[in-house]
Amino acid sequence: MFETINLRTGNRTELINITREISEVVEKSGIRNGIVTLFVPHTTAGITINENTDPDVIIDILKEINKLIPFEDSYKHLEGNSAAHIKSSLFGVSETIMVANNELLLGTWQGIFFCEFDGPRNRKVYVKIMGDSEA
Amino acid sequence: MFETINLRTGNRTELINITREISEVVEKSGIRNGIVTLFVPHTTAGITINENTDPDVIIDILKEINKLIPFEDSYKHLEGNSAAHIKSSLFGVSETIMVANNELLLGTWQGIFFCEFDGPRNRKVYVKIMGDSEA
Amino acid sequence: MFETINLRTGNRTELINITREISEVVEKSGIRNGIVTLFVPHTTAGITINENTDPDVIIDILKEINKLIPFEDSYKHLEGNSAAHIKSSLFGVSETIMVANNELLLGTWQGIFFCEFDGPRNRKVYVKIMGDSEA
Repeated sequence: MFETINLRTGNRTELINITREISEVVEKSGIRNGIVTLFVPHTTAGITINENTDPDVIIDILKEINKLIPFEDSYKHLEGNSAAHIKSSLFGVSETIMVANNELLLGTWQGIFFCEFDGPRNRKVYVKIMGDSEA
Repeated sequence: MFETINLRTGNRTELINITREISEVVEKSGIRNGIVTLFVPHTTAGITINENTDPDVIIDILKEINKLIPFEDSYKHLEGNSAAHIKSSLFGVSETIMVANNELLLGTWQGIFFCEFDGPRNRKVYVKIMGDSEA
Repeated sequence: MFETINLRTGNRTELINITREISEVVEKSGIRNGIVTLFVPHTTAGITINENTDPDVIIDILKEINKLIPFEDSYKHLEGNSAAHIKSSLFGVSETIMVANNELLLGTWQGIFFCEFDGPRNRKVYVKIMGDSEA
């Protein structure tokens, strides 16, 4: 079971909640117990799991990471997006979550977020589910 | 094979060695060759693999990350734990380790650590093992 | 399917492109669809996926991370390589990538890099592939 989620980001840096889209792929797969692997095929984006309730958490994460890795810092790479590449390596481009009873096994306050660090752009997330279809 | 490890943290920030607990789940599973996925269902905690011998390494990691992401920095989130959420995204909440001959395939100096960034609290780690039971 | 890649690093900090070596393990495995897990069994190294074309990106990533986590910062650990341990936890030691049609499913600009943070040393990367051999 392999699927691609397409999304369009709207800002230079942005965290977009994609929990619902991933949940739908899990349900459609019919896999009852296993793992779902997410992979972002981009070098200026990432994926993370964090608070799904108060949007201020996401604002704080982005503000602090943008302060920690400044957009300009005498980088050599001429495209002007080295900061985005660095953030991508710190957040990472893959994530693995468990599936139990055909549902994503997230904590109560957890959501899955696509991390845009050099938008706006058209982006993709690969979703692969491995496991058993039987109860 | 799915199991939950429960733990109680004792400090605001703390790295707790859970290698023995994970090893025991691997042994009990009977899986000989495969992968074990660890997942922390919390948004102010994480998981990492690092030095298991000199406890000063863990002290240095925590001290430096707490300096890098200060507890207070004009964050918007009113619960006062934004720093913990940011550290969670940087360390990550999932980890995948190989299993060979029914043992965790860690390097000589590696241990698995639960990362508490907003304790003390009751915490969980999900453990899922996939692979073959035969030699 | 489990294999070990050996490499020799040449500098104190260095990102080494190991995409070709990993691709060869995938092809040799005969696995058509599944996931490949990479694991670095060291506590002063890591693994990341980033830009494979302009080498200046890698230079910028290393320069910025070495600035963010200074080599000396009154660390307690007496071996003098605490900065390397901290970078290892931030970059992470495991990575999961999808396999489709017996090929690594990387984005156009993505390469897999071994991260040396305390070289030069002899290093290893474990590669485990799980999935189906049939089309």
